[in-house]
Amino acid sequence: MKVYFEEIPVSTNKRFELIDITDKVEEAVRNSNIRNGICLVFAPHATAAIVANEHERGLMEDILTKIQEIVQPERNWKHNLIDDNAHAHLGGALIGADRVFPVKDGELVRGTWQNIFLVEMDGPRSRRHVIVEVLGE
Amino acid sequence: MKVYFEEIPVSTNKRFELIDITDKVEEAVRNSNIRNGICLVFAPHATAAIVANEHERGLMEDILTKIQEIVQPERNWKHNLIDDNAHAHLGGALIGADRVFPVKDGELVRGTWQNIFLVEMDGPRSRRHVIVEVLGE
Amino acid sequence: MKVYFEEIPVSTNKRFELIDITDKVEEAVRNSNIRNGICLVFAPHATAAIVANEHERGLMEDILTKIQEIVQPERNWKHNLIDDNAHAHLGGALIGADRVFPVKDGELVRGTWQNIFLVEMDGPRSRRHVIVEVLGE
Repeated sequence: MKVYFEEIPVSTNKRFELIDITDKVEEAVRNSNIRNGICLVFAPHATAAIVANEHERGLMEDILTKIQEIVQPERNWKHNLIDDNAHAHLGGALIGADRVFPVKDGELVRGTWQNIFLVEMDGPRSRRHVIVEVLGE
Repeated sequence: MKVYFEEIPVSTNKRFELIDITDKVEEAVRNSNIRNGICLVFAPHATAAIVANEHERGLMEDILTKIQEIVQPERNWKHNLIDDNAHAHLGGALIGADRVFPVKDGELVRGTWQNIFLVEMDGPRSRRHVIVEVLGE
Repeated sequence: MKVYFEEIPVSTNKRFELIDITDKVEEAVRNSNIRNGICLVFAPHATAAIVANEHERGLMEDILTKIQEIVQPERNWKHNLIDDNAHAHLGGALIGADRVFPVKDGELVRGTWQNIFLVEMDGPRSRRHVIVEVLGE
């Protein structure tokens, strides 16, 4: 059994933003030299999330629109008495910061329209990072 | 360490539908001959999702009702300028297409009321499939 | 390869409640003696969920407020013809009962503000439990 870790540094430029990290995740899987196993994509952040979906400009805006409607950044959340980012925590909690993909024959398995994104909800941030862990043989 | 893959083909008949794949996932776990490990249930689709919950007709309708209220199929989403299924992408992104279950003593571990469903949000489709991966020893 | 299981019993006191299980998950990881791998935190319940986020009183209330607004406990859901907890099933299905974390150098990997919670949505319950599975080497 092998376990391989890679860390992808991410800088974000807006308060809400989708950052496509698909290429870097696939590169990490290749770097791992693992043929069959799983790939965990994990953001160690409480105000960001990981999602898999299509890289299409309009859809990426739709996703951010819907998330903001759900988490309501301008609402007087209780957490905002001590900080100003309750909405981002809500998004992180509900969407989740971990996604798991199969690895088969040395390649990440994903659908044609399943690109992998870090969801920034409390940007801009210069020091986000995503942990890619590949486990298998 | 062993890694076992099985693919479950799924046909869907409606635009929104829950397809119970519990039996097939459990069969895949038995076919794997893996005693202890994990089972990843993964839909390689951007317009579907995987959830675990009770197989009760009323509840299954409630789940589809709530998803539609969240993702608003009739809204003029930007993605709909090039396609007509933004709502399904939104559901796929937010709910997620991957769920992980323990495997213990050769059996899938799940709660009594945790059946496993493919969530169709852009059907009918004749060629959906779900990847079941069992990893362990 | 090693696979280690631990079960965390949880009692809940309210209908909606967040129970912080971070310490117990981290203890299970240490008990496993696994250096590198993954940790699956899994609730075998259809009316509860697992989330990772900050342990701050105000935020914890915000999370429960938002979940209740989404799942609408007082609505006449179809499932409520045979039970009274459709809202909790909806939360369980949409949020998910499984979260996966990296394990590196013998420690659970999580962000500073990513505590791990069982989300009770149909309490109080004296016999909830969470399965912690550590898999690696």
